[in-house]
Amino acid sequence: MALIGKLVVCGVGLIGASFALALRRAGAVGPVVGIGRSREPLERARSLGVIDAIADGWADALDGAELVLIAAPVGQMDAIMAAMAPHLQAGTIVTDAGSTKRDVIDAVRRHLGHRLADVVPAHPIAGAEKSGVEAAFAGLYIDRKVVLTPLAESRPEAVAKVRAAWEACGAGVVEMSPHDHDRVFAAVSHLPHLLAFGLVDDLARRPNAPLLFSHAASGFRDFTRIAGSHPEMWRDICVANRGALLDELDTYLAELAQLRGLLAAGDGPGLEAVFERARRARNAWADGLPVQTAE
Amino acid sequence: MALIGKLVVCGVGLIGASFALALRRAGAVGPVVGIGRSREPLERARSLGVIDAIADGWADALDGAELVLIAAPVGQMDAIMAAMAPHLQAGTIVTDAGSTKRDVIDAVRRHLGHRLADVVPAHPIAGAEKSGVEAAFAGLYIDRKVVLTPLAESRPEAVAKVRAAWEACGAGVVEMSPHDHDRVFAAVSHLPHLLAFGLVDDLARRPNAPLLFSHAASGFRDFTRIAGSHPEMWRDICVANRGALLDELDTYLAELAQLRGLLAAGDGPGLEAVFERARRARNAWADGLPVQTAE
Repeated sequence: MALIGKLVVCGVGLIGASFALALRRAGAVGPVVGIGRSREPLERARSLGVIDAIADGWADALDGAELVLIAAPVGQMDAIMAAMAPHLQAGTIVTDAGSTKRDVIDAVRRHLGHRLADVVPAHPIAGAEKSGVEAAFAGLYIDRKVVLTPLAESRPEAVAKVRAAWEACGAGVVEMSPHDHDRVFAAVSHLPHLLAFGLVDDLARRPNAPLLFSHAASGFRDFTRIAGSHPEMWRDICVANRGALLDELDTYLAELAQLRGLLAAGDGPGLEAVFERARRARNAWADGLPVQTAE
Repeated sequence: MALIGKLVVCGVGLIGASFALALRRAGAVGPVVGIGRSREPLERARSLGVIDAIADGWADALDGAELVLIAAPVGQMDAIMAAMAPHLQAGTIVTDAGSTKRDVIDAVRRHLGHRLADVVPAHPIAGAEKSGVEAAFAGLYIDRKVVLTPLAESRPEAVAKVRAAWEACGAGVVEMSPHDHDRVFAAVSHLPHLLAFGLVDDLARRPNAPLLFSHAASGFRDFTRIAGSHPEMWRDICVANRGALLDELDTYLAELAQLRGLLAAGDGPGLEAVFERARRARNAWADGLPVQTAE
């Protein structure tokens, strides 16, 4: 018997479609039904075998569903939950793949207050340069991390089911508070995305942009890979988590002000000390070692 | 007959050692002699077959040499050229692999003024996460770009020889003015390095650094890869090119101030427009298309 009976995937982009493919490959899921704001990606998902059927509205989608994954940009969560709320049956577990958690939980409390025991907010830490159902693959979550931020009201069986589903996809699951989640990811994910988008935009608007880009090499390629990310998704993340992100940006601006001072003074030893500290931390992390606070 | 007779490599790190290995593989070089500030990497380079012999000082190194590659952090160029100047024979071509060019050319004019016809400054656009002779490999320069910034005094035969050597390594060679070189690479290379070092340093100094790094994922990995670069090399680049780099940093700080304003205002459409413009430029570049100035 499959771990999950009927699965509903709301949003068949990279994240939602890869979840379905991974569960199918694991033999861990029954029928998979897709729903979303536009018809075309759903048709593609069906023809690619990602979903079995396209739901005819939320009543149809939720009929007999065991698990619902909402895998949409976080700016859509409010409207999605409002639409599903009247049709949500007791016992159907609802989870999401939103990159921010406090705002998603606000939407949960606004619209699904009658079903909090069945809601388990989550965030799979996975992405790829490409988005959309065509980019999806069953192995996306292997050895990736998924953060669960259960509500105080989430029933343990629902949390266990969501955990087991992600583990069946090959992911490692951890739990955090929504507050900690949003602060940590503002620092290690949202800020780097903002910085990379900003650098590419800065260069792209120059009159000599063709010359500049023609000399960019592998360091630039890696630094700016995340500037190829989905603009709507990142717009929503930035707006949803703007408090934490502004704090991170301001801390970083202070770091840049310090570096600017060292540069202006031609202070080689001062610059080298910063670079050395960064290299040590980065290499330890890349080697899988714990990173201690630098002195 | 080999393209180059005796080759002297000053600095047997990633760049210098890979140049020697690439020329050897191409059958394009005679004896290769190493010289450098410390003995130990030279011993390793000899035992790895990168060089045939370790020079016993500059007089020994330059005796009968056809080409000298100075592959050292740019902060050492002045001292190296001062040391080699008294022993440099007419006709021995001198090139370098310095990441900045105006400062290297200043050092050339200070110390090698009697041999300007034989000097061809250059910058191979290649690097790797690891540095040192152990990281060197013959294929490092395949399909990479090498920028030559010849002096007005450089004789055409010397320029052609240096070009041919890099082409034998598999690289594509272009020529630029030193001024253009230093401005372009401040934007597409030096600034991204400074930003990546700064971000990792910012996070590494936090009391919760272990937590933050434990949740960093693939986007962070790529964004910060260049923060694993050689601190001394990057110290020297930043100090040598600080005028252009300060200009780039200030332009970027203006971009961040604009993004900060959009964030603080919760201006989703404004953020999305920036992200979309950046994504379009980045994807065009990654697909090998020319990048036009964005509107």
